[in-house]
Amino acid sequence: MMNVCVLGIGKVGVHLINECINHPTINLVQIYNRSNKGLELYKGMLSTTQSILDLKKADLYIVALPDSVIPTLNLTKLQGLVVHTSGTVPFSDLQATNRGVLYPPQSFTKEKKISFKQIPLCLETEFKTDYSTLENFANKISNVVHQVNQQKRQKLHLAAVFANNFSNRVMGIAYDICKKNELDFKILQPLIQETFLKTQIMTPKTAQTGPAVRGDQKTIEKHIGQLKNTDLEVYKILTKSIQEKHGTEL
Amino acid sequence: MMNVCVLGIGKVGVHLINECINHPTINLVQIYNRSNKGLELYKGMLSTTQSILDLKKADLYIVALPDSVIPTLNLTKLQGLVVHTSGTVPFSDLQATNRGVLYPPQSFTKEKKISFKQIPLCLETEFKTDYSTLENFANKISNVVHQVNQQKRQKLHLAAVFANNFSNRVMGIAYDICKKNELDFKILQPLIQETFLKTQIMTPKTAQTGPAVRGDQKTIEKHIGQLKNTDLEVYKILTKSIQEKHGTEL
Repeated sequence: MMNVCVLGIGKVGVHLINECINHPTINLVQIYNRSNKGLELYKGMLSTTQSILDLKKADLYIVALPDSVIPTLNLTKLQGLVVHTSGTVPFSDLQATNRGVLYPPQSFTKEKKISFKQIPLCLETEFKTDYSTLENFANKISNVVHQVNQQKRQKLHLAAVFANNFSNRVMGIAYDICKKNELDFKILQPLIQETFLKTQIMTPKTAQTGPAVRGDQKTIEKHIGQLKNTDLEVYKILTKSIQEKHGTEL
Repeated sequence: MMNVCVLGIGKVGVHLINECINHPTINLVQIYNRSNKGLELYKGMLSTTQSILDLKKADLYIVALPDSVIPTLNLTKLQGLVVHTSGTVPFSDLQATNRGVLYPPQSFTKEKKISFKQIPLCLETEFKTDYSTLENFANKISNVVHQVNQQKRQKLHLAAVFANNFSNRVMGIAYDICKKNELDFKILQPLIQETFLKTQIMTPKTAQTGPAVRGDQKTIEKHIGQLKNTDLEVYKILTKSIQEKHGTEL
């Protein structure tokens, strides 16, 4: 049985808490949150605290708090391994004796449950001797565990912003165009499904289609005439990006 | 039995030809292509021609040729219904007596087979009396048939560029970042899968996560420091787009 404390009840924290509660060989010792808000939900069911000084003894403390909060916590008195879940912050931002990182490159939404089994976990510890503790925990909740150092983790986080945040945003612009023109967004679902299926079987370069890659300036101009403000800027810069990638600049 | 000619053996044409060949109640009368290249593949198996004047009698002629070629063909002598497959060109660009549009908002890649059954087909004809012919054909190959006029079809095509071409491009940037840093792009597959699944059950606005939407300026600056040229411009403009949409401008 592994004793774990989760610090933070944001998107990542809540998903980790659910995972720990439901796991047969993880004992969720305590939940910490800075404010009482949201913590009430767990009272009676689990030990909760708003004070770092009251943290109970555990093998692993998972700090799922905003990047800016991580360096502000004095966790030097804790005897277990302390890890954060950030994709960008180095482990040295943690004020703790034994420290590391458990970064899940995934987009968590409170509205949607997700199993950790398929989520890759990127691990790093300052000391080699701590790695097995973290790996032991990670293997309990996920089938995909990687050792990833700070420099690579930062690049992975950056790539994840493009793959998730930005692909979601351009789909959001598509959604808004449909809504404004009384078109059912569902008409585009098979196209969206195909887009994502292709990323699994071919490179994005091979999968690229559309007016930009085929240098169809007439269609591009028609599109530009229908857009304004930031949507127009997005259209122009992504068209340029596609054409540079494929050597089809006009 | 419905008699059909397909004009063009590009991505859309080839997929339509395959669909017609394999359908029990469609008779693929002939294939037209401007050049002999690629047409040889079908010789012996199907009637082929490089001359509009040699086109055989059919109920439906599907012009799957580039937008710029559509207005150049004199199809006025054909007695069947003539439709093109473009998302942007009006049916009036066709020089034909009976004309219309059969637009599939899908991204076709020669390397990947796809079933038309789930592809929405957006139909329009100049004359009401021709609509049933087109609808009859569309219902044979797809389960999702919509009547969509020129103005709406143009908007749908524009939305499709964002939903497919641009989401594929930002995933391409993610792919390149991974490759450059010796990170396996597969690590991001569960994230990409989750991104796509969310579009089916919630709006892109609800699904949006990341530093831009939470106003995490420190992370944004870290990312900006790691990017250059067009990738940097893409990052900045999509961050701005997210922040405008969510009212989290800094």
